[in-house]
Amino acid sequence: MRLALLGGTGDIGEGLALRFGFHTNHDVVIGSRDPDKAHDAAEAYTDELNEQGVDTKITGFENEMAADRGEIVFLCVPPYHVADTVAVAADRLSSDDIIVTPAAGVKRDEDGFHYHPPSAGSVTALVADAAPDSVPVIGAFHNLAAGRLTNLDADLGIDTLLIGDDTTAKETIGDLAEDIDGLRALDAGGVANAAEVESLTPLLITVAQQNEDLHDLGVTFD
Amino acid sequence: MRLALLGGTGDIGEGLALRFGFHTNHDVVIGSRDPDKAHDAAEAYTDELNEQGVDTKITGFENEMAADRGEIVFLCVPPYHVADTVAVAADRLSSDDIIVTPAAGVKRDEDGFHYHPPSAGSVTALVADAAPDSVPVIGAFHNLAAGRLTNLDADLGIDTLLIGDDTTAKETIGDLAEDIDGLRALDAGGVANAAEVESLTPLLITVAQQNEDLHDLGVTFD
Repeated sequence: MRLALLGGTGDIGEGLALRFGFHTNHDVVIGSRDPDKAHDAAEAYTDELNEQGVDTKITGFENEMAADRGEIVFLCVPPYHVADTVAVAADRLSSDDIIVTPAAGVKRDEDGFHYHPPSAGSVTALVADAAPDSVPVIGAFHNLAAGRLTNLDADLGIDTLLIGDDTTAKETIGDLAEDIDGLRALDAGGVANAAEVESLTPLLITVAQQNEDLHDLGVTFD
Repeated sequence: MRLALLGGTGDIGEGLALRFGFHTNHDVVIGSRDPDKAHDAAEAYTDELNEQGVDTKITGFENEMAADRGEIVFLCVPPYHVADTVAVAADRLSSDDIIVTPAAGVKRDEDGFHYHPPSAGSVTALVADAAPDSVPVIGAFHNLAAGRLTNLDADLGIDTLLIGDDTTAKETIGDLAEDIDGLRALDAGGVANAAEVESLTPLLITVAQQNEDLHDLGVTFD
């Protein structure tokens, strides 16, 4: 499949690009508001993968063009940019495409990191509201430390939780997630259940901060 | 240490009583609003442990008397009973005691299970507000499936998250948790971070519901 990582020049975009490039044969396209940055990032990820012995080429485009090329369109942007990014991509999406949202609302105050959902109740709900009705929206890949994804020598051995109301699309994204070695996809319900999944992101940050020798944490359900 | 499990006739109380009885030498006291129920439960847990070859005796009392006997007082009651239970216990607690709260606010609607905190922001915060200022409050043992705790043949191999503002008390409860084989205690911050920990409870229920072959789930951070 063709995967478009909008905002793919950031940490989570880099992590997903490298992991999809390393473990799978899917085509990866990097999107950015700035096409030069998209191109530079795509080149850097390609170099990294080639050095790892993977013969692949990642390409980079402005977000709208990347969305046009993608069948699975990832919103690798902070929560306050997801609605804008969906708006840019919307005309380029068809009902065969799937939007994937990995973002979680996190705020920091003097007591540390907290879940801070948008008024829609969750980022997944915000994206579902903003997306064209015909395009399914799946929340996934939330709780993956970018530092662990980008270190291709690191085994993952962690779970990712899938959120969405379209069962077929959710299965597609679950299969895609499990194309990455060491990643297990678990169904975590519909969009109405997204807040509990997104809440894991600040919790993982806090647990990593509070416990020595725990870094780049993931979570496993057993 | 002497552990008092107020509301210890319920699922999580049974699970903790059996696990502390099985793996540790701590004295376990069951509390209930009804002293006969406390006594009957204590007798049943004692029988179960004796059958497992553990020579121990768990005792049962009305909640107030159980709190008086406990150094570590667990509120094994639903969120809407924690304030009442603290009020019953308050006069029996000293500054050397520690209150432990494992409850999480969960509501169920047509979309499944959701985190539903009390107006204090979390059950841990509610308990901290209700408890005497001199008695530290630690949130812990939230995300443990009662069915897994009560099955003493089941290996745990899961984590429990500690929440609280009193570092010394938090360490004491962490050490106590790790006296149970297969349970690792991780610091998850102060009372202000409790909501993210308590949110795991509905998430675990949802993930167990949505995925075949996953039952009595726990969580591991790695």
